[in-house]
Amino acid sequence: MRYKKAMETKKINVMQKLLKANDTIAEGIRKDLRKKNIFFVNLMSSPGSGKTTLIEETVKKLGKKIKIIEGDIQTTLDAERLQKLGVQAYQINTGPFGGDCHLEASWIQTAIDELGTDGMELLFVENIGNLVCPAEFDVGAHLNVLLISVTEGEDKPLKYPLAFQVSQLCLVTKTDFLPLKNFSLEKLRENIKKVNPACAVIEVSAQDGKGIDSWIAILKNKPGMK
Amino acid sequence: MRYKKAMETKKINVMQKLLKANDTIAEGIRKDLRKKNIFFVNLMSSPGSGKTTLIEETVKKLGKKIKIIEGDIQTTLDAERLQKLGVQAYQINTGPFGGDCHLEASWIQTAIDELGTDGMELLFVENIGNLVCPAEFDVGAHLNVLLISVTEGEDKPLKYPLAFQVSQLCLVTKTDFLPLKNFSLEKLRENIKKVNPACAVIEVSAQDGKGIDSWIAILKNKPGMK
Repeated sequence: MRYKKAMETKKINVMQKLLKANDTIAEGIRKDLRKKNIFFVNLMSSPGSGKTTLIEETVKKLGKKIKIIEGDIQTTLDAERLQKLGVQAYQINTGPFGGDCHLEASWIQTAIDELGTDGMELLFVENIGNLVCPAEFDVGAHLNVLLISVTEGEDKPLKYPLAFQVSQLCLVTKTDFLPLKNFSLEKLRENIKKVNPACAVIEVSAQDGKGIDSWIAILKNKPGMK
Repeated sequence: MRYKKAMETKKINVMQKLLKANDTIAEGIRKDLRKKNIFFVNLMSSPGSGKTTLIEETVKKLGKKIKIIEGDIQTTLDAERLQKLGVQAYQINTGPFGGDCHLEASWIQTAIDELGTDGMELLFVENIGNLVCPAEFDVGAHLNVLLISVTEGEDKPLKYPLAFQVSQLCLVTKTDFLPLKNFSLEKLRENIKKVNPACAVIEVSAQDGKGIDSWIAILKNKPGMK
């Protein structure tokens, strides 16, 4: 057990150094894109909360000045979905790197270099579907957005607070499923407020278009970039 | 960048040693519980796929010979839900340990010691809500069960293959939402088969009771224990 404890301490030290290196790269990305007037939005959520669908709807409204970096453990399914709409999408697969549960700033920098910034006005990162790890790694975005679908339950902000705390905007998705037994939208809003009082909340549904106009207005306003 | 690479290598080496230590403890738990005729089931899924609800339904059918170890980053909400049914539930919060996205075998051993094995016939671990990390750490269960709700989309086995590969049983939950636009149960079954042909699949719904009897029958049969 003493061996295990020592290894744990070593793991924490190594992680702290990695996180510090990550933050420096992230800050560089944020500054560089601000200078180029490119708004960078990082989307985080559990698997299947509707990140790709939201990007699809956004591309339909705002067109091809959007580029996307797709994070997945495996497959290029999401990048392919988006490329069908005529936009540039770069896929990062973390599978070959031990199936990492998050994206790091250095990988984002490589992806931006590959995509090129010419003609880009809005950059989305679709992070790995996970409510834990992506919140620990700054990717250099101007706006962190957390998606939570109504089918996931209203207790999630209390159980996964960090993801909500690092986000400036929370999108409650799949509201077309409401009313849902055992789910209270009011309770979810209350729980988000408990862990992050500053987080803005809007309800959206790609099925009936609810809230999409507010979302587009926020993107045009570029909060966190000025 | 060279510094970062070196740190990455160090991280991987440390992780490999931790995983090896974890596997040894997990194997010990598995053997010890087998000897005591206690069936140990590890439940994994995304946040909000219905793990706690499934345990509640199981307790209602099989009674108080069940004990539960609850894994969450924060809060004791799930343990409290289960304690209301008169069963013993031990909560592990990983928040104080850097918000770890998985449970480790040594923590499970501690929890079992605290709960005591007297009168226990079935042990559930409700792992952290996450489709990535819990799959990497053997907790010593006889049966690994992966829950996936129909609202998460049928592409998840392809995008998060490891969680499906380490599981012997897959429960498709929230089937009361079917038929769902953009979701095919057949396609989900096909995708599970692609990544793990040996994984049994059953459809369940706590709302209308569908599949619960099959689930109870499986628990009584104790696969992986003999």
